[in-house]
Amino acid sequence: MPQGRSPQPAADSLTTRERRHRPVLAVFTGEGKGKTTAACGMALRGWAQGWSIAVYQFVKSPTWRCGEQAAFAALDRAHAGTGAGGPVEWHRMGAGWSWLPARDDTDPAQAAREGWNRVREQLAAQVHTVYLLDEFTYPMTWGWIDADEVAQTLAARPGCQHVVITGRDCPKSVLQAADLVTTMTKTRHPFDQGRRGQAGIEW
Amino acid sequence: MPQGRSPQPAADSLTTRERRHRPVLAVFTGEGKGKTTAACGMALRGWAQGWSIAVYQFVKSPTWRCGEQAAFAALDRAHAGTGAGGPVEWHRMGAGWSWLPARDDTDPAQAAREGWNRVREQLAAQVHTVYLLDEFTYPMTWGWIDADEVAQTLAARPGCQHVVITGRDCPKSVLQAADLVTTMTKTRHPFDQGRRGQAGIEW
Repeated sequence: MPQGRSPQPAADSLTTRERRHRPVLAVFTGEGKGKTTAACGMALRGWAQGWSIAVYQFVKSPTWRCGEQAAFAALDRAHAGTGAGGPVEWHRMGAGWSWLPARDDTDPAQAAREGWNRVREQLAAQVHTVYLLDEFTYPMTWGWIDADEVAQTLAARPGCQHVVITGRDCPKSVLQAADLVTTMTKTRHPFDQGRRGQAGIEW
Repeated sequence: MPQGRSPQPAADSLTTRERRHRPVLAVFTGEGKGKTTAACGMALRGWAQGWSIAVYQFVKSPTWRCGEQAAFAALDRAHAGTGAGGPVEWHRMGAGWSWLPARDDTDPAQAAREGWNRVREQLAAQVHTVYLLDEFTYPMTWGWIDADEVAQTLAARPGCQHVVITGRDCPKSVLQAADLVTTMTKTRHPFDQGRRGQAGIEW
């Protein structure tokens, strides 16, 4: 379906060009499958625009195989080699983060806060055009990161930086700050029939 | 969150290995954003497994810019160049399809049926591991393609071929044949505030 049409005239006084370059905060939430995959699909679109992409995975286990990470690594190499698309930076919270010294005793709450601190610094410095904060709702739900502060920081971010947040039970203040919220509802899921996760499908 | 756990024991008599290699028919439907992007995210995971991917776009305008297509073209080149991931074949229904002679007078209903015929042939021949049938619900809804026949063909497909269908109002027979159905609900959308579609966000 044509997706570029607005069903109602714009109420603001911006030009079409200005409206086409507005920062978007998108949230994919709900119980259904497709939150992270939808966010990665948005990052793909950004990559194709030549935008700089940063992915922060806040919860996935460090040993979890991740097809998206491999694919975006290939896209980052394609950018470096041929100039196609944009650069991709991928950070996964395991035992800490890649930019910090490795530790054995990392407190996950502390690690989550360090991740958000880094995102906040990059937003202030306008380092990337797209930030994918995967499973970022959980450290907020668990009280590790203050959701209201996140909402305020995101609402006040400078320039045209797009932020995509995934995870169940997104805190209300973040939802209210969002421009786009899609709730994924599980209508049917293979696990209901006792199926197991499959490579290439679940990761 | 760990996504590979099944909340209940499997009722079948398959081994875990067998259960991990079962064909999946996934449907992303509903009014919300993220259907095509979620499907592309699943295709990314498949690519990273080294699987052969085929994308059929059934409705998008031929002049519509598509970031995902550019990104998957880069992944296909990465596969050809370095052996990473899998090959990607991308077909867009514009004035007909790429494998047919160009025509000016193509009837869209006929073109949609030609697309589905090709998918059916490839499924029978087990050409690919993942088939992304983007916006495929519409030609079914509009009566161009018989949904019951689609459901039967997909249910009877041989081997381990995964099929992902996107679009609103997925016909009931296809939903019933699906292993995984996620409904995307629009909770908030920038177009509601009169915003326009943006490159990198909507395409």
